[in-house]
Amino acid sequence: MRIAELSRRAGVPVPTIKFYLREGLIPAGERTSPNQAQYDESHLSRLRLIRTLVDVGGLSVASARQVITKMNTPGLSVLESLGKAQFAMTTNKEPIEDEAWFDALAQVDELIEQRGWQVRATNPAKQTLAGVLATLNRLGKPEPLTLLDDYAAAAETIATSDVKLLLQGDDVDGMAEALVVWTALGDVVLSALRRLAQEAVATPMLAGAARQEPESDVVTDGSGTEPSAR
Amino acid sequence: MRIAELSRRAGVPVPTIKFYLREGLIPAGERTSPNQAQYDESHLSRLRLIRTLVDVGGLSVASARQVITKMNTPGLSVLESLGKAQFAMTTNKEPIEDEAWFDALAQVDELIEQRGWQVRATNPAKQTLAGVLATLNRLGKPEPLTLLDDYAAAAETIATSDVKLLLQGDDVDGMAEALVVWTALGDVVLSALRRLAQEAVATPMLAGAARQEPESDVVTDGSGTEPSAR
Repeated sequence: MRIAELSRRAGVPVPTIKFYLREGLIPAGERTSPNQAQYDESHLSRLRLIRTLVDVGGLSVASARQVITKMNTPGLSVLESLGKAQFAMTTNKEPIEDEAWFDALAQVDELIEQRGWQVRATNPAKQTLAGVLATLNRLGKPEPLTLLDDYAAAAETIATSDVKLLLQGDDVDGMAEALVVWTALGDVVLSALRRLAQEAVATPMLAGAARQEPESDVVTDGSGTEPSAR
Repeated sequence: MRIAELSRRAGVPVPTIKFYLREGLIPAGERTSPNQAQYDESHLSRLRLIRTLVDVGGLSVASARQVITKMNTPGLSVLESLGKAQFAMTTNKEPIEDEAWFDALAQVDELIEQRGWQVRATNPAKQTLAGVLATLNRLGKPEPLTLLDDYAAAAETIATSDVKLLLQGDDVDGMAEALVVWTALGDVVLSALRRLAQEAVATPMLAGAARQEPESDVVTDGSGTEPSAR
């Protein structure tokens, strides 16, 4: 197909496709004349993958390129390919190497050991996690750290479902693509579900707290003045 | 304290503080002369909150301002305050209103009903979730939708821990601040833990899959040629 049809089918404007071609995110089409090229289904599916990573997963175009490049390195084992694609999706800023940072790194190692997780020292998610823990310590708000075990248990349940689904794939390219799509989208899904569940859980708890608070200095007539849920 | 000390203690450059003052993210200091103002601990803690939302939570300065403004609307109930701060943290793009989108909205409503969650129609996380489901349908990759129940159950467990921790706070301002900090950071923590757990779960499963695959067309000598975990 010509670039105009590719654009229409993918829902991506022609100038954007040309930008991706220049940046190497999409392989060149087959030249049919000096200023015309043909594209096929592989170009269409690559375009859809890029738009998913960028529009839904929130990745920058630079990160999307890195993910796609890593995904396509030849000669890797399945685990290596998937690992590289996965690692490329995590970008960390340079950490502030203060005491809070080194304490946080030790906390992360301890958590990983307690759960019996075998993870490579190079897994960038270790730094991401340490960054948050260090921030909470610097803010003087370490209370959420008491939730870490609950979070880790939930993450393990979810990761088991993720990996089982992924291993149903039948080729490494398809698996790598499913991995990057679902890694990006799964985060968004989880964060949205967490917000919905927070509202669902908080509404009855806050109503209960308002009724049962004997130390409250608000004078009520006992007729049930819990906060409205609207 | 003077702006220079505020800058030093918060680790935020003076020009950035001046920008936040102009943008209304921080209340003005108390003028002590035409070109000098005094700041106190409340300015310091507000600055730290902004940096946390922006640097760690990944919010734009515009979103951070919206969260802070909503958090500080006077005369709201606890649930309303928390809800407004929470809702302000979720930004949705305009959806493409095609068939996939309306199907996805119906799927979200069905999921919420199945779990017995009471959530307001205005909760923006419904749109976020529908956006991902619509994308998966448009990409022709609906397989991850089979994971939705597992994700929703995990999200509910986590949200219960979140809300219990939050309700330990003793004033609405503190609770609202804890909510926005932990909403932003909790997402990052969960996503990092998910990636770590994925590696921990995938490594033995991939090794197992390589050993136990009788339909494999790879000829092995039975000496255990599973992909290396390095």
